[in-house]
Amino acid sequence: MKRNLVVRALANTRHPVTRSTLRPGAYADSLVLMQLQRALAALPGVLDAGAVMATAANRELLAVADLLPEEAAGARADDLLIVVKATTETAAEEALGRVDELLQARRPSEAQGYRPRSLATALKELPQARWVLVSVPGRYAAGVAREALESGRNVFLYSDNVSLADEAALKHTAQARGLMVMGPDCGTAIVGGVGLGFANRVRRGRVGLVGASGTGLQAITCRLDALGVGVSQAVGTGGRDLAADVGGITALQGLELLAHDPETRVIVVVSKPPAATVAGRVLRAAQRGGRPVVAYFLGSASPAHRVGHVRFARSMSEAAEMAAELAVAETGDEHPSVAAVDPGPRYLRGLFSGGTLAYEMLLGVQTLLTPIYSNAPISEDERLADPLRSRGHTLLDLGADEFTAGRLHPMIDQELRLRRLRQEAADPEVALILLDVVLGEGAHADPASELAPAIAEVREKARTAGRELEILTLVVGTDEDPQDPPSQVEVLTRAGARVVRGVGEAIEYVSLRLAGNADPDAGPPVALADFRSPLAAVNVGLEAFFHSLLTQGAAAVSVDWRPPAGGNEKLAGILAKMRKKGK
Amino acid sequence: MKRNLVVRALANTRHPVTRSTLRPGAYADSLVLMQLQRALAALPGVLDAGAVMATAANRELLAVADLLPEEAAGARADDLLIVVKATTETAAEEALGRVDELLQARRPSEAQGYRPRSLATALKELPQARWVLVSVPGRYAAGVAREALESGRNVFLYSDNVSLADEAALKHTAQARGLMVMGPDCGTAIVGGVGLGFANRVRRGRVGLVGASGTGLQAITCRLDALGVGVSQAVGTGGRDLAADVGGITALQGLELLAHDPETRVIVVVSKPPAATVAGRVLRAAQRGGRPVVAYFLGSASPAHRVGHVRFARSMSEAAEMAAELAVAETGDEHPSVAAVDPGPRYLRGLFSGGTLAYEMLLGVQTLLTPIYSNAPISEDERLADPLRSRGHTLLDLGADEFTAGRLHPMIDQELRLRRLRQEAADPEVALILLDVVLGEGAHADPASELAPAIAEVREKARTAGRELEILTLVVGTDEDPQDPPSQVEVLTRAGARVVRGVGEAIEYVSLRLAGNADPDAGPPVALADFRSPLAAVNVGLEAFFHSLLTQGAAAVSVDWRPPAGGNEKLAGILAKMRKKGK
Repeated sequence: MKRNLVVRALANTRHPVTRSTLRPGAYADSLVLMQLQRALAALPGVLDAGAVMATAANRELLAVADLLPEEAAGARADDLLIVVKATTETAAEEALGRVDELLQARRPSEAQGYRPRSLATALKELPQARWVLVSVPGRYAAGVAREALESGRNVFLYSDNVSLADEAALKHTAQARGLMVMGPDCGTAIVGGVGLGFANRVRRGRVGLVGASGTGLQAITCRLDALGVGVSQAVGTGGRDLAADVGGITALQGLELLAHDPETRVIVVVSKPPAATVAGRVLRAAQRGGRPVVAYFLGSASPAHRVGHVRFARSMSEAAEMAAELAVAETGDEHPSVAAVDPGPRYLRGLFSGGTLAYEMLLGVQTLLTPIYSNAPISEDERLADPLRSRGHTLLDLGADEFTAGRLHPMIDQELRLRRLRQEAADPEVALILLDVVLGEGAHADPASELAPAIAEVREKARTAGRELEILTLVVGTDEDPQDPPSQVEVLTRAGARVVRGVGEAIEYVSLRLAGNADPDAGPPVALADFRSPLAAVNVGLEAFFHSLLTQGAAAVSVDWRPPAGGNEKLAGILAKMRKKGK
Repeated sequence: MKRNLVVRALANTRHPVTRSTLRPGAYADSLVLMQLQRALAALPGVLDAGAVMATAANRELLAVADLLPEEAAGARADDLLIVVKATTETAAEEALGRVDELLQARRPSEAQGYRPRSLATALKELPQARWVLVSVPGRYAAGVAREALESGRNVFLYSDNVSLADEAALKHTAQARGLMVMGPDCGTAIVGGVGLGFANRVRRGRVGLVGASGTGLQAITCRLDALGVGVSQAVGTGGRDLAADVGGITALQGLELLAHDPETRVIVVVSKPPAATVAGRVLRAAQRGGRPVVAYFLGSASPAHRVGHVRFARSMSEAAEMAAELAVAETGDEHPSVAAVDPGPRYLRGLFSGGTLAYEMLLGVQTLLTPIYSNAPISEDERLADPLRSRGHTLLDLGADEFTAGRLHPMIDQELRLRRLRQEAADPEVALILLDVVLGEGAHADPASELAPAIAEVREKARTAGRELEILTLVVGTDEDPQDPPSQVEVLTRAGARVVRGVGEAIEYVSLRLAGNADPDAGPPVALADFRSPLAAVNVGLEAFFHSLLTQGAAAVSVDWRPPAGGNEKLAGILAKMRKKGK
């Protein structure tokens, strides 16, 4: 059945000789190929060897290694390409002549007795398996994962090169059934104490992790272990889970799971920056859980030190250190006693005289309060089209050039700010107005004397109109400042304003008050029982992962997987259609 | 001389009446206008009033307040526009009739005796003044600042609406003369214990600050004060100093100054994210100073916890807390004992199997090591055009899809990585190669056994070629991992590799080793003596800043500044040309 095609490069006695074999439509898994490559390279007279599925990327890699004869340049992704570079033509020929024998010897299934040929058979053999590990080549992976979900099993999907559309479809299917798909391109997880894929041997303990980042989870769990703190569960989501197309389905399931896991005391979330739409959902879920959460979003600026239950780390090692400290703390997480206001369009309006105060505030709340606008935006989609009219949540820097041409800075002259305060207060969609009060040399001699009557007036008007309007003032100053800050604070408080003394406090208060909690999209919860030991799993793909399961004491069965129709995709497509018609 | 123009809106007895006066080409400073507006609004029968230079922005603001009669819509930026809204026509007319009288009464110079009319005269009166405070309208500000520099004085430039080109020109002039320009749009500074512009009354102490952010400096100094820690100097740079066009001239001067100030023990730098080209210079300068530095770049991800002398904060309050802790510490900053390698093209190449490790590493070093490239870049300009060929500093994620299609992950199969190691080692411009070694379940059973001989080989080859090649390995694993990490570390060390256990350590080592120190562009240093008390300064512009100087015990003279030719720019241009010709 197999058609062997030996392509001969021109012999040159003074130089190494390169010979290759191309097997169109043949398939061998990556482990077999690695072993074949090594065996060939070790043969007498052989200088170097290559054994790859002839994808464009692999042909290019061979070319860089000077292992791609011209004749093999036209090979296709479905073809198995074997190349040998040797000192003599005879050595090269002899090496290629031994390929079949070597492939035979390396086939693990033959060396290790009976293996089921299908996932269905394997699940009959190990019916208690709640997990299926999938590490077949990317183009086949979604199909295997789908089959696992249809059998009611959770999936650990190691394979990469799976499309985003397939990922979203798989996760939606899983979510609707209360199942979890970790991956694709999920490198690691720890489920019930057993590492899946690549995982370090860490002690069991109180920290649960959710990570869209394989080596991120590994580095953090290792650091925790070094600090003497153990792991309850580690959920890998795959690197794209927090992209807009997927919506963080697995991450949200993971947070929900860990919030209800009695063994978990602290949660760590690690990911590259989530899509803006997803970040808010993830942080709200983290908040909702009520357990302390350490979040590390690589490459994005921390919105704050902490908002409610969520703390923000700057590095993987810091995330581990923060979690370790929380895990050994005797007390639980003190819940900030701020109630969320009623849902509905209840907006924040910030009227700042200090540009940096406005910027740090925007940075802190932009993830949770959407849509948010500013005349001094961080990203262009936040730009307020008309600085004179607020919309949604709006933070204004009234010290910006467009407000100060030919007039005094709002730290001296509050006229404009008072007018704007009345304008915002009259908007029935506004729930909270934030004003900074920057004291000190050069600033207004008594800002509270002007602000307080206006604050009392707008609050009273709102109350008359049947709504509660909150005023939050951020007072910046020292006790030595000429305005006498304690008396400023007192006057503002008497007028009904709440006073905070730092941007961090303002971020925390506003976020907890206005960000809301609901997330209507969640499906049924993933069963905690699926994360309890003893773990049982079916492996489809890399042998190494199967052996690792057994070594760790899990019950496991491995499928002797072959691509449908021997790797020939056209034929596989026809077969799939025939099966569908037959139904 | 003045032409009064009373524009009358149609009277309507049932509605308020709006009347306005336009004075073309007239000038009044912002304080006078604020006082006039308040005085008018307080007159009997007056409901609201406006008194502004009629810029487009101000006309729009009046319109929002329903204070812009149609007739005034065509006013120009040079015109003084006064509007009154009153209950009756008589009340409006009477109010407008009192404008001259009110302007007269509010003119501070007339109320407070003789004032010099020019900067030159003022400097003759107070020759020891080393600082000139400029807060005149933006379009005149650069001219006044230039005059101050030409007189050999430092400038505190509060004015906004100054062009970027003018800012760059002023700062280059200043730098060449060892003078400093704080601003434009510099809201605050503390020089020799005296606050300039807006500044809080904070105790004197050991923390020196450099800030491209006015309220940032104010919030941090206030927090320091609340923590019982004082300020030596606070240098404001203006918000655009760290933009590419300006190049951080003032920030670099400030860092240099504080590094040599015997009263400063800890330095804080605060800014919105600097331009990429500027960030490296600023961080190198911070490093070079040898004092502990706390950096807070709002809105940008921290590259690490710490690199050498520089620590990174996540918020203004945290920046203050970190600085306070360093300031009260008994010990000095322990200098990391890593020597920088010789200058010249000495590049880093990172060959990662862990994507997140590569990402965090790139995040950490991208500011200091330029140009840097990757197949998994953070910003698109970092993308490596051909993943098979490195250039400059390069960090590769060898676990990315393009390297793993149809082959095993580099954590299992190191073949490709070993080839790439030899390829990079052969490049004479490479000084340091970084390899991660991720241990644990599923990973290669003994990676060091393959890496060590290759490491020894490439180091030996480089040595033969007359150059030193360093290999840094980042080992991730726990002591329980099946590969026995301690023995892996030992084998790698014996082969001549340096071993670190966290990305943070790797960032620190690589940055200090390869980032270099030199910054050839610096001008002569700014004189520390200019920052010593007693402070003497000339004020040109806002009266409030002059009074604040006197209140704080500084010697000060204020110029009774008027725009050239009474605010008529055309005439001023002609006069300037005549003066030039006359020279």
